Amino acid sequence: MRRTSALILIGNEILSGRTRDDNIQFLALRLGELGIPLVEIRVIPDIRATIINTVTELRARFDEVFTTGGIGPTHDDITSPCVAEAFGVPWEIHAPTFAVLQERFGPENFNTARQRMAKLPKGATPIANPVSIAPGFSIGNVHVLAGVPRIMRAMFEELAPTLQKGAPVFSRTWHTTLLGEGALADGLEAIQERFTDLDIGSYPFHREGGHGVALVAKGQDKQRVNDAAQAIHDLLKEKGGSPVEGEPPV
Amino acid sequence: MRRTSALILIGNEILSGRTRDDNIQFLALRLGELGIPLVEIRVIPDIRATIINTVTELRARFDEVFTTGGIGPTHDDITSPCVAEAFGVPWEIHAPTFAVLQERFGPENFNTARQRMAKLPKGATPIANPVSIAPGFSIGNVHVLAGVPRIMRAMFEELAPTLQKGAPVFSRTWHTTLLGEGALADGLEAIQERFTDLDIGSYPFHREGGHGVALVAKGQDKQRVNDAAQAIHDLLKEKGGSPVEGEPPV
Repeated sequence: MRRTSALILIGNEILSGRTRDDNIQFLALRLGELGIPLVEIRVIPDIRATIINTVTELRARFDEVFTTGGIGPTHDDITSPCVAEAFGVPWEIHAPTFAVLQERFGPENFNTARQRMAKLPKGATPIANPVSIAPGFSIGNVHVLAGVPRIMRAMFEELAPTLQKGAPVFSRTWHTTLLGEGALADGLEAIQERFTDLDIGSYPFHREGGHGVALVAKGQDKQRVNDAAQAIHDLLKEKGGSPVEGEPPV
Repeated sequence: MRRTSALILIGNEILSGRTRDDNIQFLALRLGELGIPLVEIRVIPDIRATIINTVTELRARFDEVFTTGGIGPTHDDITSPCVAEAFGVPWEIHAPTFAVLQERFGPENFNTARQRMAKLPKGATPIANPVSIAPGFSIGNVHVLAGVPRIMRAMFEELAPTLQKGAPVFSRTWHTTLLGEGALADGLEAIQERFTDLDIGSYPFHREGGHGVALVAKGQDKQRVNDAAQAIHDLLKEKGGSPVEGEPPV
C-alpha cells in the first residue's frame, strides 16, 4: 500500500538562516523506512494564519502530516492553538499533562507560560517527551513534535509504533567517477521508461576525489529495484564508467 | 521597503533523506543581507504538475522566488520546461547558450541530452555558471539555480547584483545558561508587545556546556532593534540570568 506524508517546519530560525535545519533528513529517512515517504516539506514562519492554512491544506492531501517547532512556553510558540483551530476544536488544559508538568516544575514555578504547555487541542493524544517532559501530540493525521532535534527524535520514536506502516521503499545506488550525466542521460531515460513504477534518480557529485554521478533506483518492489539496478550497472559499463555499488564516499 | 522571497527546492533527494540540504541556510542568510528575507520554503519532488503549481502560486505571493535543482541533462531535470509552462511561454533553444555549450563539449559530444541544457523559457535571462557552464536563468521574479551547492552559490553571486534590494534586516542576540524559556516567557511577551515592528524570538539550546536560551530581536529599524536588545538584556538580569551577547557557543 502506498502511503504518503508531509512535513511542516514551523518557526523563523530556519528562514532567517540563524539555524541550519537538523530535522528533515532524520524524518525523511525514518518515514521512508516506515513506508510513509515524505512527499512535500514546507518551512513557514510562526504566523497564525499561515500555520492554520498550511496544516489544513496538507492534512487533506497527505496520509500523515508532521510538524516540528513552536510548542514551547513563549509567545512565539503558537503551533498548538493553531492546530486546534485547523481542526475546529477548543484548545484546553489536558489534565494528565497539567498534573505531570506541575509535579515537574513545582506549584510555585508552574506559571501561566508553563501552563500553556499543558494545553492541547481537545481530543488530541499526547506524545511523550522523555527529554524535557512537555509533550507533543497527535490529532487526526497531524503529529506535532518539538523543534529541538534531540527532543523531536525522542518524540518521533515514541510515536512511530502507533503509525500505520506502508510498503517499505527499497533503494539501490551505483556511482562512477569520470562519466558525467550528459553521457548517460539517454540510456537512463530508457531505463526510467522500462521501470515506470520506480524512481530513477541521477545525482552528479563534485568532490575532492573527483567528479562523477550517482544513479539511484527506488521503489516498493524489491525485485524491480534489483532489475533496474542491474540495468544501471550495465549502462555505466557500456558508457565506459567504473560502476561501484553505493553512494560515493563523502 | 519591505521585500519578501520564497525558495523552492526541487528534487527527490532531500525528501528521501539521501542528501542533507546544504542550500537553505546560505540563501536564507544572503537574502536577509540583501533585505529580501525568505518567508517560505518548499521542498517538492520532480513531478511536473507540482512544480508548475508551486511556481505559479509562490511567484504571485512573493516579490522574488528562487528555485534550486532539476536543471541538468537527465530525464528527471524538468525544472526549466515547467517554469516555461508556469509562465505560459515556449521552452526553446537559447542561441548564445547553445553556442557556448557546443564549444565546451565539442560538436561530437553535444548530444540531445546536453542540448536540453541550452533550452530556456522564451524571454529568460541566463545566469552565468562559472563552475560547469550550463546556466541558470531568471524570468520575471523567478530565479532558477542549480542544486549542487557550489554551483548554486556561484550562480547566486552572479545574480545578486541584479536583485532589487530591500531594507536590510538587523538582528541582536543575547543568551544565558541556567534560565529556561518558562521563566522568561511573560517578560518576553511584554517586550514583543512593546516592539510589534520587530520579531522577538526565543530559542532554547541543549548543549554539552549546559542548557539555556537565546533571545533574538530582529527588524529593519536598527535603533528599535538596539532598544529591544537592551530590554532583553535587562529581562535576563532581572530573572537571575547571566546575559552574554551573541549566539551560544556550538
